[in-house]
Amino acid sequence: MTTEAIQPAPLTAVKQHYTFAEGPEGLVLESGARLGPVTLAYETYGTLNAARDNVILVAHAFSGDSHAAGYYPGDPEGEKPGWWDFMIGPGKGIDTDKFFVVCPNILGSCMGSTGPSSLNPATDAPYGLDFPMMTIGDIVSTQKTLMDHLGIRRLHGVVGGSVGGMQVLEWCVRYPQFLRSAVAIATTMRHSALAIAFNEIARQSIMADPNWNKGNYYGGSKPDMGLAVARMVGHVTYLSDEAMRRKFGRKLQDKETFSFGFDGDFQIESYLRHQGTKFVNRFDANSVLYITKASDYFDVVERMGKIERPSKKNSEKRKYLVISYTSDWLYPTYQAKELVQTLKRSDQDVSFCEIEADCGHDAFLIPDERLTTLIRGFFDGLS
Amino acid sequence: MTTEAIQPAPLTAVKQHYTFAEGPEGLVLESGARLGPVTLAYETYGTLNAARDNVILVAHAFSGDSHAAGYYPGDPEGEKPGWWDFMIGPGKGIDTDKFFVVCPNILGSCMGSTGPSSLNPATDAPYGLDFPMMTIGDIVSTQKTLMDHLGIRRLHGVVGGSVGGMQVLEWCVRYPQFLRSAVAIATTMRHSALAIAFNEIARQSIMADPNWNKGNYYGGSKPDMGLAVARMVGHVTYLSDEAMRRKFGRKLQDKETFSFGFDGDFQIESYLRHQGTKFVNRFDANSVLYITKASDYFDVVERMGKIERPSKKNSEKRKYLVISYTSDWLYPTYQAKELVQTLKRSDQDVSFCEIEADCGHDAFLIPDERLTTLIRGFFDGLS
Repeated sequence: MTTEAIQPAPLTAVKQHYTFAEGPEGLVLESGARLGPVTLAYETYGTLNAARDNVILVAHAFSGDSHAAGYYPGDPEGEKPGWWDFMIGPGKGIDTDKFFVVCPNILGSCMGSTGPSSLNPATDAPYGLDFPMMTIGDIVSTQKTLMDHLGIRRLHGVVGGSVGGMQVLEWCVRYPQFLRSAVAIATTMRHSALAIAFNEIARQSIMADPNWNKGNYYGGSKPDMGLAVARMVGHVTYLSDEAMRRKFGRKLQDKETFSFGFDGDFQIESYLRHQGTKFVNRFDANSVLYITKASDYFDVVERMGKIERPSKKNSEKRKYLVISYTSDWLYPTYQAKELVQTLKRSDQDVSFCEIEADCGHDAFLIPDERLTTLIRGFFDGLS
Repeated sequence: MTTEAIQPAPLTAVKQHYTFAEGPEGLVLESGARLGPVTLAYETYGTLNAARDNVILVAHAFSGDSHAAGYYPGDPEGEKPGWWDFMIGPGKGIDTDKFFVVCPNILGSCMGSTGPSSLNPATDAPYGLDFPMMTIGDIVSTQKTLMDHLGIRRLHGVVGGSVGGMQVLEWCVRYPQFLRSAVAIATTMRHSALAIAFNEIARQSIMADPNWNKGNYYGGSKPDMGLAVARMVGHVTYLSDEAMRRKFGRKLQDKETFSFGFDGDFQIESYLRHQGTKFVNRFDANSVLYITKASDYFDVVERMGKIERPSKKNSEKRKYLVISYTSDWLYPTYQAKELVQTLKRSDQDVSFCEIEADCGHDAFLIPDERLTTLIRGFFDGLS
């Protein structure tokens, strides 16, 4: 006899690809530039129902990918599951027994979707800086193309944190009729000067690396040093003073006294270096440039203020859930409140929750029953 | 007839140098390493009185120098005065009609005092990384040597902000009997993990630049790119979300629309790049490594807790003034309060003021009548 609940089998993940805009015209981006063909990598979990309306689109953050949950067949022992595995699965916050979950890798990334490291058909070499600048609008419009391809008529919901939350907001203003609901977590309607500043430092760090070579480094030495520093900067903005004090404080790394040198004495130093190195092995520096720029350009304040008021005839009012974290200093709560106020001014049905957490901006990536309960309640309550 | 007050003539600044530890033994540093000869550049304003007890030592911040006030003879029209000119001068907060002000450039810097860019007498080449690691304790002990050389018997006060404030605190624990008073502004008893993290990013940025060449770049190409990014990181930590929003927000630089490129669209981007470039022209990258490391090592919590209780016989109780800024997120007010509590536990006579200001950590470098009034009142009230 055991008191442990029986755990459902973990999800099996399969990375799929959809390629479009293969004609000579390609896809026209917001900047006016053309791009084609465009491939989006994506994963799905759960089963699409007959009405094709039980779909939840999960939008990943800046350096995320389509592997939101589960394991790939053949994953070695100890391999980590997808980045939101605690949230997505049978009986979890986003219940795959009920919902068909789709997570696409964003345009401009390097995790299977078309981005600066993809082959430019015009030159048969990676795009590098010839990749056209894309926007959060372009990211979302390609996601819509994927939804159409999958025969999806309407989304039960779209959900995402950080840059994923920006995609959620872009969905709200661009395709409102396609949405039953939207959940925006730890995000903002537009970057503050502080957020732009940190992104610019990350870009400058990459571009200062001689190996960056104006973006033409594929096949040669990569700008690993610059990219590692860029990641260290980013990583600090995802944490908080409290979280770092609790986790690291002034603890020394494998030492009892100071080294009086530059090899790193404090655990926080080793941790950041480790984060930098890890990132270099999995992400493309040019993708950092493009995605940070897209998030800096992002600004839905005006369009969010013009969202159509719900009509009285429409019994199925679109619902919004906005979530912020007390210790998120990249997109602080006051920015989430501005979003909520903007939605309320046009009578939208919006709920807001600020979660008390000391782990900073990245809190939504850390298992937390409060977040799971909020999201479960929100999506289940719509049915 | 005019209603304008007559402005006193600006101070004339003269950079002086004092060299010591010229013997074969040199100076023994906290790490145990030896260094010699040691030169400190310094400036003085006002007149030393006959009792040699009207002295205020001004300790500069991380990238500061001995030029705290006034102009050098021959300064071109439009040249800026010393970095705390609004505070130091006849009739100002630190009144040079009353006080003899001394501001030394810190050990390890590159503004006239001995540091990694100085000639190593053993090799006749710049030290580079052969410069021994020095601490805030070493910085203060060399300042004490300078005070002794100048025949100063006791300081009316020591005052400084940021890393200058750390020197103030080190003075308090190292030479308490030499102090009549101490003013610590926007500082901390020890760095948080967050502060160490930003310093480590700055160091990694410099060391990632191939021109850094393990510190041996003197006479060749300097690690300008890495140093510029390091400064951009530092500069953001000196500002605040509010200040950046007020000053820059999302304003574009010389453009009406987005460039859809990486040349920089937003004013905050150009501003940071400008700060980076400006710094490269005036500061040495190795000095950044040494001084940031010294500030990371700094920790007076234990010694501050052991400061001797004032004796009842001693009518002239040592006085402390601690000042923090509401928007300083590098050394937030809670850290200043920890300092105040520590001092109070041993019955020290400490005053504390948190100044409401939205301009972040660097607020003490910006003219503010509230700061001037506080400091004037504090130093004048001692006499």
